[in-house]
Amino acid sequence: VTVLVNGVRDADASPVDRGLHYGDGLFETIACRNGVPRFLSLHLERLALGCRRLNIDASGLEDTRTEVLGLAREADRAIIKVLMTRGVALARGYATAGSEKATRITIRYSWPHEDSAQLHDGVLVRTCAMRLGENPYLAGLKHCNRLEQILARAEWPADSDITEGILFSSSGRLASGTMSNIFIVRGSTVLTPNVDRCGVAGVMRRVVLREAQRAGIPTREGDLQARELNCAEEIFLTNARMGIWPVRALDGRRMTPGPITRRLQSLLAPLLEEPANA
Amino acid sequence: VTVLVNGVRDADASPVDRGLHYGDGLFETIACRNGVPRFLSLHLERLALGCRRLNIDASGLEDTRTEVLGLAREADRAIIKVLMTRGVALARGYATAGSEKATRITIRYSWPHEDSAQLHDGVLVRTCAMRLGENPYLAGLKHCNRLEQILARAEWPADSDITEGILFSSSGRLASGTMSNIFIVRGSTVLTPNVDRCGVAGVMRRVVLREAQRAGIPTREGDLQARELNCAEEIFLTNARMGIWPVRALDGRRMTPGPITRRLQSLLAPLLEEPANA
Repeated sequence: VTVLVNGVRDADASPVDRGLHYGDGLFETIACRNGVPRFLSLHLERLALGCRRLNIDASGLEDTRTEVLGLAREADRAIIKVLMTRGVALARGYATAGSEKATRITIRYSWPHEDSAQLHDGVLVRTCAMRLGENPYLAGLKHCNRLEQILARAEWPADSDITEGILFSSSGRLASGTMSNIFIVRGSTVLTPNVDRCGVAGVMRRVVLREAQRAGIPTREGDLQARELNCAEEIFLTNARMGIWPVRALDGRRMTPGPITRRLQSLLAPLLEEPANA
Repeated sequence: VTVLVNGVRDADASPVDRGLHYGDGLFETIACRNGVPRFLSLHLERLALGCRRLNIDASGLEDTRTEVLGLAREADRAIIKVLMTRGVALARGYATAGSEKATRITIRYSWPHEDSAQLHDGVLVRTCAMRLGENPYLAGLKHCNRLEQILARAEWPADSDITEGILFSSSGRLASGTMSNIFIVRGSTVLTPNVDRCGVAGVMRRVVLREAQRAGIPTREGDLQARELNCAEEIFLTNARMGIWPVRALDGRRMTPGPITRRLQSLLAPLLEEPANA
């Protein structure tokens, strides 16, 4: 991996960074192809919104943009992770001074091994036992408090055939995958859970909703329950790296990737393979 | 501040530590007097329990004990914070390898300025608008996902007379303060919220319950609602540094620190002033 800390290659982090003590920060995971980061403006827009909501110093966002573009340019395929913490604090305690200078960490990872059959045939998923806590103040943000996702991911072994776990919230609402957003198709409508109580407002979720609307496919964000998941004609998952993963089995129940999932995959393909400079 | 990272003074942290990326860790805040850490065994017991529940490598706990004792010995009064993250991971993603070596950070802070009138006359508190998400998998642990506490603490200005904010959970249960546990007195019984849905199982909370029981004061951990807080005859807060803070006003409603609060303060005083080597 290649690491920049506040723009300095291979620098270290401070042991009194609030990111380390409290998960007091935000991140973005940006897929890059042909030297170009996908949907960079959407990622930076979400990061800026997160900084506003958490009152984290956003003055380094333009530097982040430059760093991501620079690191992407050197690689055919890469995943670039941007981490923005509230910064270093010599004082103890949850209170913020308001004057903290954000810590900017930009990391380039190689593109992981990818099973292309998963994109075509679909993935196996299971329902997690753990339910996500609900907090509208944090919902939607890609913040660094991710113990829930870590514990949910630990519910099934790394070497299993299961690719993703589906999470409900403490009040029983369908929420998301551990590292993806979830969509279901009912009739001809594409439905996805609200992200106003928990979950992340994924960039690929946003792109899929936009592309569906442009193509005249009805979409709706709403409250969804287990019965709606279980009766879904199609289920698919989205994230920044994979685009759309069709679900071919949920808790052992077999499904066939359906026509709306296929159509959305086709609409996305050019955006994912040849990202525009934006 | 004096910092040890994996036992090395003034060392830095890794920018790919999972603590920094996900708040994937635990901490303890240990008050030290006369060169001796208070309730060190209870703090390390909770830390060990947290490591078990999160499956974090606990092999460094004995080193942590040695470091805390060493740093405490050099100071008349100090706060020592111990941070134990899952460790460094070169791979991206929530999944754990299971082989991560925990990162151990031990930091000595000076004892903060303290308004001794607060211990005697009590403190002003307010109810926070934010409600804590509920997740039994994380409840009770002093883990490093603390954005909720940071946002709650930001609800009132640093320079106000308010010392602490009281939090309810998403289902309306009384939970805790942002940095303290809460107790109420009703009749002659000392009541405190369960910590099985959210909140931290505070070391001082445990000591207060123990000392009350030893003194024959009835105690009960249970589900408490807003009406029980509002009808309480006495309210007090506990944390590792302060011991017991009587509440003298809640959302502007005046209260007089009561006899059971005073009695518990007296029972605690010798334990806080002259901690035993344990």
